[in-house]
This record gives sequence, C-alpha cells and structure tokens, in this order.
Amino acid sequence: MSSIHLQMLQSAFASEGAFGDLDAVKQWLREQNEKVHVSVNKVRFDQMEKWGYSSETGRIRHESGKFFSIDGIRIKTNWGAVPDWDQPIINQPEVGYLGFITKVIDGMLHFLVQAKIEPGNVNHVQLSPTLQATRSNYTQIHQGKKPLYLEYFQQATPAQILIDQLQSEQGARFLRKRNRNIIIRTEEDLPHYDNFIWLTLGQLKALMHTDNLVNMDTRTVISGICIGSDTNNLQFSSTSTHPLAAGFLNSTRDQSQAVHSIEAIITFITALKSTYDLEVDRIDLKKVRNWIFDADAIRHEENKYFRVIAVDVEIGNREVVKWSQPMVEPAQEGLCAFVCKNINGVLHFAMQAKLECGNFDIVEFAPTVQCLTGNYLTSSSSSLPFLDYVLHSRNEQRILDVLQSEEGGRFYKEQNRNMIVLAGDDIDDQLPEKFIWLTLGQIHTFLKFNNYLNIQARSLISAIPFHE
Amino acid sequence: MSSIHLQMLQSAFASEGAFGDLDAVKQWLREQNEKVHVSVNKVRFDQMEKWGYSSETGRIRHESGKFFSIDGIRIKTNWGAVPDWDQPIINQPEVGYLGFITKVIDGMLHFLVQAKIEPGNVNHVQLSPTLQATRSNYTQIHQGKKPLYLEYFQQATPAQILIDQLQSEQGARFLRKRNRNIIIRTEEDLPHYDNFIWLTLGQLKALMHTDNLVNMDTRTVISGICIGSDTNNLQFSSTSTHPLAAGFLNSTRDQSQAVHSIEAIITFITALKSTYDLEVDRIDLKKVRNWIFDADAIRHEENKYFRVIAVDVEIGNREVVKWSQPMVEPAQEGLCAFVCKNINGVLHFAMQAKLECGNFDIVEFAPTVQCLTGNYLTSSSSSLPFLDYVLHSRNEQRILDVLQSEEGGRFYKEQNRNMIVLAGDDIDDQLPEKFIWLTLGQIHTFLKFNNYLNIQARSLISAIPFHE
Repeated sequence: MSSIHLQMLQSAFASEGAFGDLDAVKQWLREQNEKVHVSVNKVRFDQMEKWGYSSETGRIRHESGKFFSIDGIRIKTNWGAVPDWDQPIINQPEVGYLGFITKVIDGMLHFLVQAKIEPGNVNHVQLSPTLQATRSNYTQIHQGKKPLYLEYFQQATPAQILIDQLQSEQGARFLRKRNRNIIIRTEEDLPHYDNFIWLTLGQLKALMHTDNLVNMDTRTVISGICIGSDTNNLQFSSTSTHPLAAGFLNSTRDQSQAVHSIEAIITFITALKSTYDLEVDRIDLKKVRNWIFDADAIRHEENKYFRVIAVDVEIGNREVVKWSQPMVEPAQEGLCAFVCKNINGVLHFAMQAKLECGNFDIVEFAPTVQCLTGNYLTSSSSSLPFLDYVLHSRNEQRILDVLQSEEGGRFYKEQNRNMIVLAGDDIDDQLPEKFIWLTLGQIHTFLKFNNYLNIQARSLISAIPFHE
Repeated sequence: MSSIHLQMLQSAFASEGAFGDLDAVKQWLREQNEKVHVSVNKVRFDQMEKWGYSSETGRIRHESGKFFSIDGIRIKTNWGAVPDWDQPIINQPEVGYLGFITKVIDGMLHFLVQAKIEPGNVNHVQLSPTLQATRSNYTQIHQGKKPLYLEYFQQATPAQILIDQLQSEQGARFLRKRNRNIIIRTEEDLPHYDNFIWLTLGQLKALMHTDNLVNMDTRTVISGICIGSDTNNLQFSSTSTHPLAAGFLNSTRDQSQAVHSIEAIITFITALKSTYDLEVDRIDLKKVRNWIFDADAIRHEENKYFRVIAVDVEIGNREVVKWSQPMVEPAQEGLCAFVCKNINGVLHFAMQAKLECGNFDIVEFAPTVQCLTGNYLTSSSSSLPFLDYVLHSRNEQRILDVLQSEEGGRFYKEQNRNMIVLAGDDIDDQLPEKFIWLTLGQIHTFLKFNNYLNIQARSLISAIPFHE
C-alpha cells in the first residue's frame, strides 16, 4: 500500500488533530462567526450595483459579462411525466477551483480548512476548502485580492496531486456547471492566516454530522477520497471506531461480491442515456412560461421550486467587502437520502439515475431519495420510491441525519436534510426501474470519471463516518 | 479468466472462420457489390425531396424534423490560434444503435457482419455491424422496414451484453453526436439473410488492413473490445501470430510499468478541461461567416475543409430504395496516425488531447497526428508535431497503413489515411504539451467511460492486429 493511502486512512479515523478536539474546532468556528460583520439585504433587481437584466441578452448579468448570469431555459425531455417546461437557471460556464492543501503534521495528514463567510449561509461562517475560487476570482475581474494559497495549486507538480476531478453542481439550478475538485499535499511551511486551521479527515467527517458547519464545497472535494482501497490487511481496533467502519472499508475493497459488475452498471447508464433526451434551449428570462418576473423576484406562479432574488451584501473578511448579486432562494427544504443494505455480505448503496435539466450528460447517479425543495412532508407517501421508508426509519438505522447547506455564494439560506439509512430485509434486493445497487468501491470508480455522481450523492458519500 | 474473455482472445487470433478464409470474404464482398444497383447524383438543395432549408429554423432539415439537420454554429474558444469561427455542422441528437451479435460457431466466437451499402461509400458496399440504426430508423419514421435483428438488441438480457457504451462521432462534423456501441452474444439459431456472414474478430481486424472494406461503425464498435485483459498466463506460439501481439497483450495487462497512473491521466484531462472553454451557439445557416451558401453547395470561401451538398440516392438492398439527403463532402483527404513506443518495456501510445467544436466535453483523446481534410502533404512539416515523423517512417515501422472511409450515410466519398507507427529512440519519452503516453490497458479503461477517446483514435485502436 502506498503511504498516502495509509495516511489518508489514518486521518479518516482521527477525531483529534493538531488543532485539538471537535469542541475546540466548534468553539473556534463560533469565534470566527462573532468576529465578522455580515449584512445581506434583499433589494429590487434595478437596485443592484453593476448587475441587471439586459434585454439584449435576455439575462440578468454583471456588467463585465463575467461571474455568472441568470438565464431562462426551455427544456424538452421524454424522461418523466412533464414533457417540457421553462425555468430560470444559473449559468456559470467557468470551471472554478475547489481545493484542499494537505500536510503531515505530528505524523498525521491534516487538511487546511478555511472559515469562510458566504452571503447565503444560514449561519454565515462554514468550514470551506483551502481555496474556493471561480476563474473570475483568480483572474481578478472584480479587482479584489488574489485568493490565498492559489499559487500552491497552480504550481503543484503531478506528484503532489492526490485527486483532481471535474465534478458537477446542482443540475436543477446550474446549467452544466462544474468545478475542479483538487487535493494537493505539501511539505512546505505555509503562511498562516487566522481564519485557517488544520483538521484531520476524521474531524471534517465528524463535523458533517452537525447541522450546517461544513460547506458544500468541502463536502464535494472530500467525496472524491476513496478510503481504504489499498488497505487489504489492516485491522482497526480503536474503541472509537464506527460500528460500520469495517463494512464501509469492505464495500470499498471487495468487488467480487458486488451485485453488478462495472460493465453491467455502464450498460445500465448507456441504456438510459440512449433512451432519454434532454434538450435545453436558452430563452429570454422575460419569456419564461409560468414564472413571474417581479421587481424584486422571479418566482413560479404557484410559488413552487425557488425564487431568484437580488441582494446587497456587506461582509468583513472577504476579498470584496460590499457588492450586489442575484441569488436563488428555495421555496422549501429538501431531502437527500441513501438507502444502504448488506447484500452478499457487502454493503451496497441504492443509486437512483436522475435527469435534471442542467445535467451535463442527461442523467447522473443521485441519492436513493432526492426531492430538493419538494414539499415531501405533505405529499402522499407513495409518490416517491423509498421516501416513506426513509422518513419512517428508526434512529438506529440512521448512519447520518443532518441539515446541510447548499453553496452559500449562490443559494440564499438553502439547507437540505441529508440522511444515510441502513436497511434490512424490509428492503427488497430487487430495486425499481432506474435504481441500481453499487458498492462504495464502484461509487468511487465512477466518481473518478466526469459527471457520473451528482452533488447530492457526493455530499452524502463525503459524510460516511469511520469513527464514532 | 472468464470464458468470454478467452473466447474473444481466440477469435482475435483466428484468421479463418466459419465462412472460410480472407479471400473468400473479399470475394463475397465483391459479389455483394455487383448484386446491387447504386446511383448517387448531386442535385440542388431545392431539388431534394422532403428536405430543404427552413428560414424559420435556420437549418436544412427533413420535413418530419427527424433524422438529422445541417445547422450553423458559432464557436468561441481559448484553445488554439483562432478564437472564434463559424461553420456548418451535422446535428443529429438521437442516439443510434451500432451493434454486433456474436455467437460461438464451431467452437469459435464469430461476429454477424452485414454487407451494407451507404450512399457515400467510395466502393458502395462495406462490412458493417449487424445493426446500424438511428432511432428514426427503428421507430420507422420513414416508413421503411424494421431493421433486421433489432429485437435481439432490444431484448438482450444483462448476461448477454458484452459491451454497451456511448461513443462520440467526428467532433469537427457532428454536434455532440453519440452512438450506442453494443455487442451481444446469443446461443439461438438466427434467421439468415444473404447479405450477412459470420466472421471472427481476427478476420475483421485483418480486413481493416485493406482499404475501405470495413466501415467506420464496425471499427468503433470493435475498438471497445479489450483483448487480453484477463489473460495473464496464456502463451501464443502460432506461426501466424503478429510479431507485436505479445507487446499489445502486455500493454493491455501490465499497468505497473505505465508512465502515468490513471489518476495522473485524469489530472491531465481535468487541467485541460478547466483551462479551455468551448462555447458553441447555433446560428442561422445563412449567417455563417466565411461560408458561401450556393444553390448546390455550402462551401468555405477558400474552398477549404468540406462542402455540404445535396444528393438523390437510389440503391437496391436498403430499407428505403430512393431518397434525397444532404451530405458532407471533404475538400481533401486526411491523416490519422498513432505513434507508439516501448517505454519501461511496455508499449505506449502517444495520445493527443484535441478540442473539436462538436465535442461533447471540450477535449477528447485523439491520435498522435490528426489532420482531417487538412492539406498536410503541402504544408510545412514543422507545423504539426509528429506529422513529418509519421510521413517519413520506414515501412517496417508501420503496423498499419490503410485508407479508411468515414461514415457513408453522412459523408460523401470521404476517406482518411490510418497509420500506426512504431517509434524507437528517435522519439523522445518527453512529449509536447497536450500529449501524453497511455498503455493499451489505460486506453481501454478510458474507452469504457463516455467521451474520452475520439472516433479517429478508436478507428486506429480497432485495427490493432494479433495475427499476421
């Protein structure tokens, strides 16, 4: 086994690190929160500085044409019950960096984590990757400061790069948006800034089991780490080991007992992508059917899904301290949940193939249940497979049950319930159409290649715990 | 090793099969050619039946809106020397089937091959997959007959499917076009039609070393077969074994000596996709800059690249015997060549990352040299890396050197020179930017996932020979 795999595994099991224990981290995060001034006020679209609707382009855009825009799209598909619809969507064609620097400190691999304020965050400050920067950020369109630590990523040698993947964002909200998820390691002494700390992978994962502490960008990068793939003969007997840790490691390593081969899973996806169409045409934001473009919001005529709003932002420790921007505000919370089950002695995840209008390639693997901003609590339980099962699961089945924020730079106070539920024989091995069992190792195989797992699935995978 | 891997390997080494030897196959193909009447006449666009330019949509389309259309596109990219250009392109959003049925006959795995006429073929009839059908074909938009053997693919069980992949078509000519490349096996007795024969994989590969006998669709499906991946301890001592067969098998199996890990190759691609943009907007075909829309052709003002033409077709053994359609006629021939080299004792292929305007995901792996319809014979030799080397390689370096047709249903008499050249120490291990060494096993890993290898690269891979 290569030493980096062993280091990553050890870090995943470590609930204490150079900074101290989890309480110390939470206390530090509270202090970071208290130190900063944050003010986010909703305004009218025509009050936004440097942003506005352009009748020429039919979109809400920044005067530079950079950052992102709010576009209208018309979707045609033969996938579900609704053959066509219009909606607003965030169009951000640039690929940005989401990156962690890692380093061995006191013999243990640590991640350089940033306490970052985003205007949309429920609680202002969350734990973010070392670097979180759009290309507009790092080419400094907005005349702000250069993002901290950017040069370490730009100058990383192949030997320093642990993962480097393009991964998708929310397909219902972003038009084919992707980010570069990257983790590098260094042995250098780095400059220290007081909103950065070093945490173990185990600490990051543990913090994902408390509501809204770890931001979406951290979760997506962490999901790319395949823990235990090369660790055939290791035994962990720590008292703080999670009761399912051995099961997770085994599901990563042993593919001989998987329900489906990788080739059969590729066949499953190929058949769906060959059968279903997704046609997306950009239209003028003023011509989006069934949506109302008011002075201060673009909203669905039945107030469903989400609203596009405008905000003025003033915050303390960000590159630019005062600006306007459009944001997306959800109509209600959502639920993302994986159902897992031991089959043939190996833990499997029930993956759902899901078409979302902004998907880069028609369908992606989504959690077993994903009803983003759907009103699932009042809907009939039979409407969505496994929804009822997940909502009525017993506490001891719940490996994860937590509220997680969507990306606070674009989404206004959006949080979704994230759950991983361990099923028994009450869930059949035979899954409904468009669902398929994957082991954790197979999930990581698809994760390595572009655009196979959606961000909701990755968010759940990142939180898989190895210690209590 | 599973029996199917062994059967595939044996079939790849078999230069004779149930139908006889290669001469018998060539003779049969000549007879098939003589049996059919083929007439293809160039006409004016306004003489095409059921096809025409529509000012409403700005494209040349079929009156049903099905099949395909000729669109105008405007491209913006920061990839090469030209930041933006316009061009016509074939837009065929439907995913079609390209499929082979295989069956063990006389103890040997055989492929059911069709002698198929396409209007654009240089020599009318070429060896085609069992099934070659767009969705319009098999949903019978054009009132033709149902494609033969379609039901075997539609009803195939997972255990019958050997490969099932979405693969791209020519990115300079097709807008994000993909086909479902599928191989199934059966033990049933199949109905026999006189334009179908059973060939071994070795025969198909051998026939690819004669000009224009095996069509593009056959080549792309065959490229998906990874030969020898599970064949660790096999020895082949047949006198007709290709001198490089052991090298090809070794390059498929042994990744421990590969120059780059799979993760490093993913980093290479991720960096390119994060750095380079490809923005494609559809525009009216009459507004395509630098192209002239005449009564009988859309051509570049300097007569470069290709022309869109209109033809009347009359052929004998196709579902519909008489029709009109637009086609693409190249301005000149092109060259696609791989340079290979033994490094660390393992055969590596010099892959080029290439951006083409119709690419699904910005860049794909292309052959070392790819100058489709470029006037390479008169251009300065220094203009393209490895072009001069390939053109001046010695005969004994040339593993492959053959003319191959592009898809005859869309391209009018287009053929390109296909070469695989084995380099020695005269080629440096250090490659230019945007080039990277891959083993054959790594090539097949990327081939399994969507849209990593372009069709020119796959065409070359399919022709890798195992027997003389």
